[in-house]
Amino acid sequence: MSLASKARVAVVGATGYAGAELVRLLARHPSVQITAATSEREAGRGLGEVHPHLDFAGLTLTNAKDASAARSADIAFVALPHGSSAALVAELLDAGVRVVDLGADFRFADRKLYESWYGPHPQAGLLAEAVYGLTEHAREQVSAARLVANPGCYPTGALMALLPLASEIRGNVVVDSKSGTSGAGRGATTSQLYAEVAENVRPYKVGVHRHQPEIASRLEAGLRASGGETKPCPVLFVPQLVPMARGILTCCYVEAGGADVGEALRGTYSNDPFVRLLDEGAVPEPRNVRGTNLVEIAWRRDESSGLTVLLTAIDNLGKGAAGQAVQNMNLMLGFDETAGLELTAALP
Amino acid sequence: MSLASKARVAVVGATGYAGAELVRLLARHPSVQITAATSEREAGRGLGEVHPHLDFAGLTLTNAKDASAARSADIAFVALPHGSSAALVAELLDAGVRVVDLGADFRFADRKLYESWYGPHPQAGLLAEAVYGLTEHAREQVSAARLVANPGCYPTGALMALLPLASEIRGNVVVDSKSGTSGAGRGATTSQLYAEVAENVRPYKVGVHRHQPEIASRLEAGLRASGGETKPCPVLFVPQLVPMARGILTCCYVEAGGADVGEALRGTYSNDPFVRLLDEGAVPEPRNVRGTNLVEIAWRRDESSGLTVLLTAIDNLGKGAAGQAVQNMNLMLGFDETAGLELTAALP
Amino acid sequence: MSLASKARVAVVGATGYAGAELVRLLARHPSVQITAATSEREAGRGLGEVHPHLDFAGLTLTNAKDASAARSADIAFVALPHGSSAALVAELLDAGVRVVDLGADFRFADRKLYESWYGPHPQAGLLAEAVYGLTEHAREQVSAARLVANPGCYPTGALMALLPLASEIRGNVVVDSKSGTSGAGRGATTSQLYAEVAENVRPYKVGVHRHQPEIASRLEAGLRASGGETKPCPVLFVPQLVPMARGILTCCYVEAGGADVGEALRGTYSNDPFVRLLDEGAVPEPRNVRGTNLVEIAWRRDESSGLTVLLTAIDNLGKGAAGQAVQNMNLMLGFDETAGLELTAALP
Amino acid sequence: MSLASKARVAVVGATGYAGAELVRLLARHPSVQITAATSEREAGRGLGEVHPHLDFAGLTLTNAKDASAARSADIAFVALPHGSSAALVAELLDAGVRVVDLGADFRFADRKLYESWYGPHPQAGLLAEAVYGLTEHAREQVSAARLVANPGCYPTGALMALLPLASEIRGNVVVDSKSGTSGAGRGATTSQLYAEVAENVRPYKVGVHRHQPEIASRLEAGLRASGGETKPCPVLFVPQLVPMARGILTCCYVEAGGADVGEALRGTYSNDPFVRLLDEGAVPEPRNVRGTNLVEIAWRRDESSGLTVLLTAIDNLGKGAAGQAVQNMNLMLGFDETAGLELTAALP
Repeated sequence: MSLASKARVAVVGATGYAGAELVRLLARHPSVQITAATSEREAGRGLGEVHPHLDFAGLTLTNAKDASAARSADIAFVALPHGSSAALVAELLDAGVRVVDLGADFRFADRKLYESWYGPHPQAGLLAEAVYGLTEHAREQVSAARLVANPGCYPTGALMALLPLASEIRGNVVVDSKSGTSGAGRGATTSQLYAEVAENVRPYKVGVHRHQPEIASRLEAGLRASGGETKPCPVLFVPQLVPMARGILTCCYVEAGGADVGEALRGTYSNDPFVRLLDEGAVPEPRNVRGTNLVEIAWRRDESSGLTVLLTAIDNLGKGAAGQAVQNMNLMLGFDETAGLELTAALP
Repeated sequence: MSLASKARVAVVGATGYAGAELVRLLARHPSVQITAATSEREAGRGLGEVHPHLDFAGLTLTNAKDASAARSADIAFVALPHGSSAALVAELLDAGVRVVDLGADFRFADRKLYESWYGPHPQAGLLAEAVYGLTEHAREQVSAARLVANPGCYPTGALMALLPLASEIRGNVVVDSKSGTSGAGRGATTSQLYAEVAENVRPYKVGVHRHQPEIASRLEAGLRASGGETKPCPVLFVPQLVPMARGILTCCYVEAGGADVGEALRGTYSNDPFVRLLDEGAVPEPRNVRGTNLVEIAWRRDESSGLTVLLTAIDNLGKGAAGQAVQNMNLMLGFDETAGLELTAALP
Repeated sequence: MSLASKARVAVVGATGYAGAELVRLLARHPSVQITAATSEREAGRGLGEVHPHLDFAGLTLTNAKDASAARSADIAFVALPHGSSAALVAELLDAGVRVVDLGADFRFADRKLYESWYGPHPQAGLLAEAVYGLTEHAREQVSAARLVANPGCYPTGALMALLPLASEIRGNVVVDSKSGTSGAGRGATTSQLYAEVAENVRPYKVGVHRHQPEIASRLEAGLRASGGETKPCPVLFVPQLVPMARGILTCCYVEAGGADVGEALRGTYSNDPFVRLLDEGAVPEPRNVRGTNLVEIAWRRDESSGLTVLLTAIDNLGKGAAGQAVQNMNLMLGFDETAGLELTAALP
Repeated sequence: MSLASKARVAVVGATGYAGAELVRLLARHPSVQITAATSEREAGRGLGEVHPHLDFAGLTLTNAKDASAARSADIAFVALPHGSSAALVAELLDAGVRVVDLGADFRFADRKLYESWYGPHPQAGLLAEAVYGLTEHAREQVSAARLVANPGCYPTGALMALLPLASEIRGNVVVDSKSGTSGAGRGATTSQLYAEVAENVRPYKVGVHRHQPEIASRLEAGLRASGGETKPCPVLFVPQLVPMARGILTCCYVEAGGADVGEALRGTYSNDPFVRLLDEGAVPEPRNVRGTNLVEIAWRRDESSGLTVLLTAIDNLGKGAAGQAVQNMNLMLGFDETAGLELTAALP
C-alpha cells in the first residue's frame, strides 16, 4: 500500500504506556501511517529519546494543544489521564476526526453512575453516542461509530468471561484480578517503584475501584441485550498488583446454575481470532498473551460448592488497551480485524 | 542459657526450603540447640555448602535413616515430602521424641477424607492423636501434644481469617490465594524455573488442590467447636503462582450476613502477638510479614453485593510452615510463645 | 508468496528456548514454511501443548531420529544441547540440507582448542568448512555456506563490540556479562528455580566459561583478518546471572590507545539494519532489544584510567541465538536480511 | 539492660530506605533505645503508617528542624539526601551528639576533590575530623570519633576487596558493580518504576558516578597507610541497575602481579565477624547477605591474561549503609561489634 493511500492516524499521549504501545502497533500496521504523536511534557523531542525501542518509527512529539496534525487525521487515539481527554475528544469529533478514547470518560452510558464515581462529566452530551468498544460484543456499532470508548483493562478481562453468561448468572459476582504494574501508568509514584512492588502482591481499592461499576453496568447492559430482565448485577471487584510489567489474570466467581458454560463460551467466540478458549485442564496465563491482542479463557464448575470460576488472561496494554483500540480502528476503517495485530508473545 | 540446659531439637529434611527456614530460626533461638539436621541426598556435607546463609550454624548433614541423633532429641521437626514422613514420625514417637510434622500426613482427622485425596494412609492409627497446629486456635492441645500436624500454608492463610467467623458464614466460601514459589519446594521442575515464573500469574489445580478439603474440614470442625451445627462448608479454592519467592496473599469471599466481622476478629485475636488486625483502609501485603511469623488480616463488607472479603498475608515459610512450627514448639516445651520469633521483615 | 514456493525449513529441538524462539520467528516469516519441528521427549504432541503461545503455528512434534521431514527440508536449524548435534548435522549435510547449528560444536576453527574445552570432537572433519555466523562480520561466507555455526550468546554480545577494534586493542580484555536465565536452557535445575534466581546476581564459571576461548579465538581471527599480527588476545570473561528471562548486557574493558572508537564502530556498522550505535550519554539496555535481533552498542573512554569501556545489549534468544540464525538463513537463501525480523520490543 | 541505661539514639530521615533499615536494626538492638525518628514530609504520623513492618517500634515521626529530641541523644544517625545533612551534623556535634552521617558530605578528606564532584562544601571545616567509617579498616579511629562518615554503598563493596591489595595493584582498576534499586532511594522517579526496572540491566553514569573518586581516593589513602608510595590509583567505575531490591555484586579487575591474594585477604580479615572469605570455587551472592551486615569475598587469578578478579557481595542497605552504621555505633559506644547485627538472610 502506498503511503498516500494509508489512513492517517494520530496518537494523543504517545509517551505513556498505552500511547507507546499504540505507536508500537501502528508503526508496523500495513494500512496506516502515524501523522501525529503528541506529548505535553516532551513536545519537541524525538519519541525515540523517550522510548528507544520506538526510535525506528522516526516520530517527533508535538503538543496536542498546538498541533493541527491530530485534527487532520482520519482517526485519533486519545490516551490521556482520565478527565483530561473529554474536551479534546469533542474538538476532534467537530473537526471530523473519528476517535478511539482509551480513557474512562465515555465508558458509561449512565451519566449519574459516571458522576457518582468520577465527578462532573465534562462532555456529557457525547455519552449517548459513544460506543463501548469491547469489540467481540459490539462489532456493528464499533464499525459505524464516530466515538469509541475503549473499555478499561480490568473490565475487558472480566466481561469477556462474564458477558456470554449474563443471562445465566444468579446473585452476586466476585471479580478477583491480578494486574501488572503498567496498568498504573508511567507517572512517578513511590508505590510503583521496583523496590515497593517486587516480591509482593498488593490489593488496593478493595471494593471501591472505579472499574467495579463499569463491569456491573456493562453486565447489566449485556443482560438486557440478551433479552434478560432489567436488574442489577452486583459485582465485588478486588484488584491486586503483582510483580509483572504487563498482564492481567482475572478470576470470576459466579453461580451459573445448570448453564452449559462451555457451550455459552463456544457459541459466542468460536470464530473470533483473538479469543483462545482453552481445553479442560489448561489455564490462562498472562505471559501467553503478552504483547498481543489475545484473550485466553477457561472455566471450571466446582461440584461441592456449585460455583463456577471463569478465568481470563489478557495483556493490559494489548486487549486491555492499545491492542483492542487498534482492533476497533480496523473495524472503523474497514480493514481486516486482525491487521497489524498478528503478534506472538516472546516467551520466555 | 547454658548449652546443657537447652532443649535438643532435630530438623529432619534440613535442605528443603521449610527445613532451611527451621534451621535459620532455631539456630538463633535462645532456648534450643540443633542436635541433628538431616538430608537424604546431601548427607555428609556441611549444611553451609548447600545453603551458604546457614554456614554460621556449623551443622553437618546426616541421613535420617542412619542417624540416631534425631531419636535422642527432645523434639523433632519433620519437613519431608508428603507421604514420606509417616513411618519416621511413628518411630520418633516410639522413641519418646515429640514431633512437629510439617507434611500433610496428619492434618486430617477423617481418614476417609485423607485417603480420597492422598491415597492410603501409612499410619492411620496416629490420626486421632495428632493435633492440628493452627496455634492461635489450639493452644492448649498443642501444649500437651506428642504429635502436632503443622497446617498447610494455604489453609493457614485462609483459616486465620475464616475460623473466627465460622458460625456466621452462610453458603459457599471462595478462597483465592496468590503464592510465592517456595511453596512448591526446592525440587527441580521446569514449571518453577525463573524464566517460566517471571512476569506471569499462573493458576493451577483450580478447584482440585489438596488444600481445599483441608480448609473445608477444619472450617467444619471450627463450626462444631463454636457450638454451631454439623454441616458441610463448601469451599472453592483457587491457588495461583506469582513471581515472588515467599508469601501468600489470600482473599476469602463469604456471605456473613449481618455479622460484625471486625468484632469477631478482634475478639479472637486481640492479644495474639503474631496477628496484626489492620485498620480500615489498610491492606495486608506479604512483604510486610516476609521472614516472620506474622499474619496480617483485613476485611471489607461490600454493600452492593452483601459480600464480605477477608484478606490475609503470611509468609508461606513463616506462619505457613517453619515459623508456626517453632511457635508450636514453644508451646510444647513451655517457652515464651514468641521466643526466637521476634523478627522484622527486611524491607524493601 | 504461495506455500509451494516457500522454502522448507526444519527446526530440530523445537521445545527448548532457542528452538521455540525459532518457531516464533519462522512461523511468521514471509518466505518460509516450517515442515518439521522435532523433540525427543515430546514427539507426538502438538507444539502448542508444550508452548501455548506457539499454538497458532499448528505444528506436531516429531522425533528427529525417525522423521525424514528434516532431511527433505531446504535448511535445518539444529538447536540441541552441545555435543548432541554433530552427528545429525553431518547426516543432514549428506542429505543435501543446509544447516544452521545453534550449538557449540562447530564454533571453533581450531580442533585442539575445541577439544581442550569440550572434549573429543565428534565430527572434526567439518570444522574447516563451518562458517562462524556472526552475520555482520561474515556476510559473504554465510551466504555461500552449507554449514553455519551460530555464535554463542555471550560471544555475540562481546564480539560485536570488540571486532571493529581488534587491531587497536593492547593487552588484555575484560568481558563482564550479565545474562538472563533463558541462556541456561529449559532443563529443570534447582539453581535456575525462580526462588533461587530472584533478587540476586550470581557470578558463575568465573574465568572458566567455555565462551571465553570462543571470544578470544574469534578476536584473534578478527585481528588476523584485519591485517594485524598473529598474536593471542587474552580475555578474562566473567558471566553473571541476573533476574531476567531474556537479554545480555556486556561490558568490555580494553586499552585502545588513541583509537577513535566511535569512528571504528560507525565505519563497521553504519549501514547495518540490526545495529543501533547509541549517541553519547545513551546506554544499551537489554529490554530495548527484547524479542528482536537488534544489538545496541555504546562506548566511553575514561580519561583518568585511559581505559575504554564498550557496552552492548542483545537478546540472548534473538541476536544471541534464534534471531541471528534467521538472519543467517536469510542470507543463505537469498532473502532480504531483515525478512521476518522486523520486530519491536514490547515495552514495558 | 534497663531502658534507663540504654543509649539514646536518633534517626534523622527515618522514612527513606536507609533510615527505615536503621530503625529495623536499632529497635531490636539490646543496648539502645530510639528516642527520635524524624521525617520532614511525614512528621506527625506514626512510622508504622509509612512502613507497616516497623509498626512494632511504636515511633511517631517528628521534624528534625523542630524537635529537640535529636539534640539530646547520645548518638544520631543522619540519613538525608546528599548536601542536606551538613548543617544539621554541625549543629548536632555542637550539642554534644556524636554522629554517623550516611550521606556523602564527609566522605572525602580532600575538599577540592569533593567540590569538583559535588559543588561547594557546606561545612568544610569538619572534613579533617570526620572518620571514614569502613569499619574493618578504621576500628580505632571510629571508636574515638565524634563524626563518622559512613562509606557509600558501592565504595564499601569495592574497597573491602581492594584495600588489602592496595600495595600490590599495578596500573588501573576496573570496578563493575551491579546494584539493587533501593540504592537509588525511595523518591518517586519514572526510571525506578517496577515496569522500567524489571527484566533489564541498566548501566548508568558510566565513568562519571560520584562513587568513582570516593573509591580512588580511599584506595590511594590505603596505599599510603600501608607504607606504599603516594600515587594516583585510577579507577574506572561502571554501576549497573539490576531487578533486585537490595544487594550489590561488585567485580574488581586488577593486575596484582604475583601477589598472594588469598593470603592478603586472610591476613586482613581472618578474625572479622562480618567478612566471609569464600573457598575456591564458591562465589559471592547478594542474596546470601540480604538483610545482614555481612560481606562475602572471593577472588580468582586468570592465567591467560594475568588479571585477577575480586568479587564481593553486600547488602547495600546493610554493610552498604545501615548495618555498617550500627557497626560503627557499636564501636563508638563500646558495645560488642556484632550487637544487634546477628542476623541471617531469609532465603529464598
